[in-house]
Amino acid sequence: MALIVQKYGGTSVGDIERIKNVARRALATRKQGHDVVLVVSAMAGETNRLLNLVAQITDRPNEREQDVIVATGEQVSIGLVSLAIQAQRGKATSFLGHQCRILTDSAFSKARIKSIDSERIFSVLKNGHIAVIAGFQGVDENGNVTTLGRGGSDTTAVAIAAALKADACEIYTDVDGVYTTDPNVCAAARKLDRISYEEMLELASLGAKVLQIRSVELAMKYKVPLWVKSSFSDDPGTLVCEEDKSMEDVVVSGIAYDRNEAKLSIRGVPDVPGVAAKIFGALDAKNIVVDMIVQTVSKEGKTDVTFTVGKSDFVKAKDVLKKVVRSIKAEGMDADENVAKVSIVGVGMRNHSGVAARMFRVLAAEGVNLQAISTSEIKVSALIDPKYVELAVRALHSEFGLDARPSGSAAAG
Amino acid sequence: MALIVQKYGGTSVGDIERIKNVARRALATRKQGHDVVLVVSAMAGETNRLLNLVAQITDRPNEREQDVIVATGEQVSIGLVSLAIQAQRGKATSFLGHQCRILTDSAFSKARIKSIDSERIFSVLKNGHIAVIAGFQGVDENGNVTTLGRGGSDTTAVAIAAALKADACEIYTDVDGVYTTDPNVCAAARKLDRISYEEMLELASLGAKVLQIRSVELAMKYKVPLWVKSSFSDDPGTLVCEEDKSMEDVVVSGIAYDRNEAKLSIRGVPDVPGVAAKIFGALDAKNIVVDMIVQTVSKEGKTDVTFTVGKSDFVKAKDVLKKVVRSIKAEGMDADENVAKVSIVGVGMRNHSGVAARMFRVLAAEGVNLQAISTSEIKVSALIDPKYVELAVRALHSEFGLDARPSGSAAAG
Repeated sequence: MALIVQKYGGTSVGDIERIKNVARRALATRKQGHDVVLVVSAMAGETNRLLNLVAQITDRPNEREQDVIVATGEQVSIGLVSLAIQAQRGKATSFLGHQCRILTDSAFSKARIKSIDSERIFSVLKNGHIAVIAGFQGVDENGNVTTLGRGGSDTTAVAIAAALKADACEIYTDVDGVYTTDPNVCAAARKLDRISYEEMLELASLGAKVLQIRSVELAMKYKVPLWVKSSFSDDPGTLVCEEDKSMEDVVVSGIAYDRNEAKLSIRGVPDVPGVAAKIFGALDAKNIVVDMIVQTVSKEGKTDVTFTVGKSDFVKAKDVLKKVVRSIKAEGMDADENVAKVSIVGVGMRNHSGVAARMFRVLAAEGVNLQAISTSEIKVSALIDPKYVELAVRALHSEFGLDARPSGSAAAG
Repeated sequence: MALIVQKYGGTSVGDIERIKNVARRALATRKQGHDVVLVVSAMAGETNRLLNLVAQITDRPNEREQDVIVATGEQVSIGLVSLAIQAQRGKATSFLGHQCRILTDSAFSKARIKSIDSERIFSVLKNGHIAVIAGFQGVDENGNVTTLGRGGSDTTAVAIAAALKADACEIYTDVDGVYTTDPNVCAAARKLDRISYEEMLELASLGAKVLQIRSVELAMKYKVPLWVKSSFSDDPGTLVCEEDKSMEDVVVSGIAYDRNEAKLSIRGVPDVPGVAAKIFGALDAKNIVVDMIVQTVSKEGKTDVTFTVGKSDFVKAKDVLKKVVRSIKAEGMDADENVAKVSIVGVGMRNHSGVAARMFRVLAAEGVNLQAISTSEIKVSALIDPKYVELAVRALHSEFGLDARPSGSAAAG
């Protein structure tokens, strides 16, 4: 008998029939003798409906109040899922963020989980209940409602799996696993049976959208075996787990792209110590996450600093930077929402040189100009014109042998 | 400088334009130098939308889970109203039931308020904020979400006005005050300038729908001056307050009707002590509120017991009574959803005899049969066939001189 956390995303609870299907799946797992904890998202479309109401009032909402509003989506879902389980003669109890005390910091709209009160959850499991927990939300120390950012339900699920020391955390979604790249862009994309936390981390942060990045970080930290599965099929899905030897044989495991970034450049920055800290400190103070950072070589005591932020932070970032430009006496600022990022990811890269050069050669051959480059041990990213995204992904997928190989990067999970 | 609690119902926050209107009204009051606390309902139609989702899963929902679902309606409203106030350069902070700790018992779907933590509300008022509080909801001692029953936002508003010792509680709705009867049924209905708590209590409990009965009870208990006003006009509305001398000159202040009751009869009940306690104790245990009770004279040691419950409790009441019928060895049960109640109400009745007889004479003259009768010091109610409701209301309104008199039952408030 195991303890299994199952997370169902918005499309999996998108209507009443699908909610009944979730209840059936959870009960089937329960009947196998396992303890089951569900984490559910808002019904598909609901969060957007709520954000649209907000947008009709203001385009710069107070984030505390916005969190109060959007947190209702998951609240409705946990009630409906619990009722559906009870209607199928199962036992269920729902939990809101404040009820199993998913304690977070106070960074509204992108809060981080600090702790979870597992006691109340265990007490209902002991009585044979399925615990149905609202994803995406928590409370801060003053009892304010917080949310974890888009896709935060994955993070809730992994955090709960870690807190309860669960045997597995299964993320149910509308795709049947993690692919070498987006099948909508590249028909040759293949499902992976297994992928390392590190690779998944790069793929998630680079826009592969299957799992929220923080959920993978958490899973890696607490060694939670993470399954990505479809709620509409019985495919075993993809296991995200610790790296094993065989994974290193593959140079590149996947190709990711992201159209959700925007580029900002500060021109003519006086090249004195502490300037970068002022720029990125100001952004950090507003909880704006910066991705790629490129700084040109100093010329006549001045330098240009270019970096990317999420498109949703673009307006806020520009506001912040206007003040910064004045205070550091820079020459000006350029802002461009029209950029995309393409990346190659693989733990095998560590043992192979020349992977980046090979990527740039392929892109150059297709006539794609690189606006910025950033690299890590297991990935290489390039900022390009969005119109070349599909072309670049397909060319790289083929170049690194992902089209051809018959099965995943390792044995089936 | 006064402290004013304003409650806005579902139609007053029915769309974004109306929400902006509520923000404008609240800020106008604030600018007059008053402290303002808002209590808001779910947007019109939202609670029904949520109950419809529930109904697609089960027709006997677990009430704890149903409360989790329907409480989201008010949660969305407080967020949107707060944002609208902020968008108009005001300051606002929203509060959920668990945040200003509106502590209730655990009678899900019809919980009663035990206490309110006024400290957190005062602390935001002190900083110049408008406090925007979710109506209709609370938490019990274990942190479970509870709701107060339909119209519960009125009760929240009065309870908060009492807890904060507010100078006035203004209930904004889509009508401009309390009428002598339903203007949709009787064109001769007139708006009252002033009405006593006791009369309002009878009118509310008899289906006048303007205020929830418990809110009037609470207002009476704590002597909260209660205004019923329209959120779409500047009409002064109706003041519900303590009785004064002039009110007694009027025999009947209003005519009420209610189509939301259902009749249940237990036939052949053994006429021994404790039987009535068994019947009504069983209903009370399930939180079913019983209204009229009529017991026939005993014949051969047996009696019939007839009573009414709210239509929404009809199915549950039948379930409860099936068991009771067996356990008390009664002969059987009749159930009829097709009944309506018509009532006359007035504090002046106390000093006038023959008011009930005059009512029955009028109904008899119109050919209306009376299925049950119940009376109190200031009201007389009769259960009739629903098809006669309009006829009965108009005949009584005219008979008791409500059509003719030029102004309300007392001086304008």
